[in-house]
Amino acid sequence: MIKTIQESRLFKIANPESIAYFGASNNFSAMGTHMLQSIQALGFEGKIYPVHPKEDTVLNLQAYRSVSDLPCAPDLAIIVLPTRIVIETIEACGEKGIKHAIVVSAGFKEVGPEGIALEKELLDTAKKYKISLIGPNCIGVANPHHQLNSTFLPFEGKPGFIGMASQSGSFITQMFNYLKTRGLGFSTGFSVGNEANVDIVDCMEYFGACPNTKVIALYVESIRRGKAFIETARAIIPHKPIVAFYVGGSEAGRRASFSHTGSLAGPDKLYEGVFRQSGVIRAYTIEQMFDFCCVLGTSSPPTGNRIVIQTHSGGPGAAAADCCSQANLELPSLSEETLEKLSPFIPHTASSANPIDLTYTKNPLDYFSKIPAILLDDANTDSLLVYFLASDSLIKRALEGMGMSANDIEENTDKIIDQQCHSIEELFKANGKPFISFSFLTRESSFIKKLMDKDIPVLPGPERAVKAMGALVRYKQLKDKVLASQKNQVSKI
Amino acid sequence: MIKTIQESRLFKIANPESIAYFGASNNFSAMGTHMLQSIQALGFEGKIYPVHPKEDTVLNLQAYRSVSDLPCAPDLAIIVLPTRIVIETIEACGEKGIKHAIVVSAGFKEVGPEGIALEKELLDTAKKYKISLIGPNCIGVANPHHQLNSTFLPFEGKPGFIGMASQSGSFITQMFNYLKTRGLGFSTGFSVGNEANVDIVDCMEYFGACPNTKVIALYVESIRRGKAFIETARAIIPHKPIVAFYVGGSEAGRRASFSHTGSLAGPDKLYEGVFRQSGVIRAYTIEQMFDFCCVLGTSSPPTGNRIVIQTHSGGPGAAAADCCSQANLELPSLSEETLEKLSPFIPHTASSANPIDLTYTKNPLDYFSKIPAILLDDANTDSLLVYFLASDSLIKRALEGMGMSANDIEENTDKIIDQQCHSIEELFKANGKPFISFSFLTRESSFIKKLMDKDIPVLPGPERAVKAMGALVRYKQLKDKVLASQKNQVSKI
Repeated sequence: MIKTIQESRLFKIANPESIAYFGASNNFSAMGTHMLQSIQALGFEGKIYPVHPKEDTVLNLQAYRSVSDLPCAPDLAIIVLPTRIVIETIEACGEKGIKHAIVVSAGFKEVGPEGIALEKELLDTAKKYKISLIGPNCIGVANPHHQLNSTFLPFEGKPGFIGMASQSGSFITQMFNYLKTRGLGFSTGFSVGNEANVDIVDCMEYFGACPNTKVIALYVESIRRGKAFIETARAIIPHKPIVAFYVGGSEAGRRASFSHTGSLAGPDKLYEGVFRQSGVIRAYTIEQMFDFCCVLGTSSPPTGNRIVIQTHSGGPGAAAADCCSQANLELPSLSEETLEKLSPFIPHTASSANPIDLTYTKNPLDYFSKIPAILLDDANTDSLLVYFLASDSLIKRALEGMGMSANDIEENTDKIIDQQCHSIEELFKANGKPFISFSFLTRESSFIKKLMDKDIPVLPGPERAVKAMGALVRYKQLKDKVLASQKNQVSKI
Repeated sequence: MIKTIQESRLFKIANPESIAYFGASNNFSAMGTHMLQSIQALGFEGKIYPVHPKEDTVLNLQAYRSVSDLPCAPDLAIIVLPTRIVIETIEACGEKGIKHAIVVSAGFKEVGPEGIALEKELLDTAKKYKISLIGPNCIGVANPHHQLNSTFLPFEGKPGFIGMASQSGSFITQMFNYLKTRGLGFSTGFSVGNEANVDIVDCMEYFGACPNTKVIALYVESIRRGKAFIETARAIIPHKPIVAFYVGGSEAGRRASFSHTGSLAGPDKLYEGVFRQSGVIRAYTIEQMFDFCCVLGTSSPPTGNRIVIQTHSGGPGAAAADCCSQANLELPSLSEETLEKLSPFIPHTASSANPIDLTYTKNPLDYFSKIPAILLDDANTDSLLVYFLASDSLIKRALEGMGMSANDIEENTDKIIDQQCHSIEELFKANGKPFISFSFLTRESSFIKKLMDKDIPVLPGPERAVKAMGALVRYKQLKDKVLASQKNQVSKI
């Protein structure tokens, strides 16, 4: 295992200072042009050298007739060329001394026997020159912390803490907008394509050492190096959680992923076993993978599986409670001491069974401060799940009712929401126990937006929040198991 | 069964011309005040008579000292008063000749033995005066088609086609914003509370006859009238689908729902059986319930379970395919004829196995017109699932690349998106086979917004779309089963 990302074969792929670009032109419908535009749009600060046989400039950058004309050997070559000239281009890059390449071009292993032969030749050429190559048939890399986005779509949102390696480029580039709506972001996303050379195990290793990455996400259609996958995962799990979404367990899924990257997915049970042995948490949809990442990247795991649910709405509370057994969570009763401490804050219509259904709060701010603080202190509980409504429109209407002017309403709504968020943030930081919230409101609500921007996990709906808490508990169990077996191995020596 | 909603006991509750309001004041933190503000905010066009012992006006409406002082007997009484004076108020309403009431006040059956006695007295009083009463411990009614929203939160979004009866008020009032973000809306939402008098079976009957309602949604913690539930559902299913989200199957869920509305939820298997016998489609989360409603309210069921998936992105396509077996859907191979018709439109990198992964399209508009049209025509398939990316930013970038001015870019982006939507709409209307789309983009994308506003189902993610299509297939099966058994019964006579 590497100690720093600088040691990784992927370092210069994700953090180049200079790029040789093949396949961009001034034709705005060409894929390579689009992809170079993505790089420019995010404000990449390094040098870009477009290589084009005819053009003098490409997208306002000085162009070069061939790679041999370049004034230096750039850190990285990005190749978006027709299949037939990819190998000669890699050869030329090798001659120039370029050591890293992203091959976007498709038409290799995924198209059948002829493509398999081509891919072997590509790999041999890369090896001859000691080039670390990601792809072919991939969409490249997005490292927003380095202002690098080589993918097809413009980057949106913020640099984040999710390190993702994906056997589908879509699950990198098409997630920018999606993650933005959830207040999340990639630390770095790698689309690995056909994995001729670099594969997801290399990416895992990189993320294990990446300081921006708090949780690792994998989209898996096939694992090529089973043993290395398990060993690498087990080395990472004690420090960082890994979540995997695996597709290919069904016959239809298998067929689909085969035509996608030319890899043969295995039966579901086999992969289930590999993930279990690796200490990797499995997600069953891409949404769920990011639900889990959201919580695993922001919260320390609880010491046990006892959860308390705080709500002011019966239905959402009951739905969360009903889902707990599925997620292997227990709902303990509160201690007498807690009930006593709670009593000044809760109305007579409230239920103090778990879920704690307050129905309403005498002082609304208590819901965000005193009440969750008391619940987190309970000795019977390991974690807290809180339902948030706090609609902006409700606060505004109350202030309007008090006769406030439109300007004062805006200002005071902001103040109240800031106060609520601040209380929640204090609790989130102060208490060792994890604390997940859920809401049906989106980032359009300024309260939800502010929570998300403080990296406080807000899950969209009760079941998803409960399952995410379940994943956090599971991470603790997997981590303990991996650590225990490592200790055993050491003591055997 | 009733033939028109006018015959329903709920008609004047959901469509009053005049309301006597108890519990609103000029105190802006009172719940009754908030709820009356919701009514005013939606622009209710009938008369409102606030009853208040001291105030001359309440929220700028003329107030009356007591119900006996009212100039008429309004259609509906809404009661948001302290528990102890609810019964005497219902008595007074009865004396006045009011025949419909919403009792929001809590403190009845859900609080234990004393409350049970109180609730019986409330019910006896209502019966004495032949009052149809919804509640107590409910949040009232939202009928946006009648500009009526008696619930706690301001209404948002548009009047829709989902008729919902809920044993949790939250799942009415807190869904306004959520449904808006999904381009959906309630035809009418009833919060039934403790169901002392009116229950969800009455609501189902109402929705069965309601012309604005295309699909019925139920949030169920407990079914009180099992036989009536089954009979009513079976009478409705041939004309309208019903979806139920049941909570209480687990021990924790049972405890939570008991303290919520004082009803004892039954074991999961029992409810599963009731739903199956009723022809009701079961959903497992509130999100899933609305996923199913979105599709069931907009699309006719397919004749079979063979689905074709159209995508330009491998991962989302594979994820959808992998989920099909879970949803009892089959992915047939396309006919030779279809493959021939497709070939001019698809690039050499495409896969024409099902999922049809186009990777890209030579002419982008084909993706929205010719290609889905050909797939829908295939004799081997019963339905189509299409993945949409069509990011606004991508179109804008392409136009910018062509050297267009900012103004022209906006205008042309709009035009292109309109064209895409129009093609999709034509297909959606023209072809008898159902057609569901999915995307990771939200309503913030103008393409997605426009599709939603045309009632074209856009589901958020591949698995959710596949499961929604599964629900549509299931509806056909359930409907056929109910119809067949009804025919059998008739022929037996």
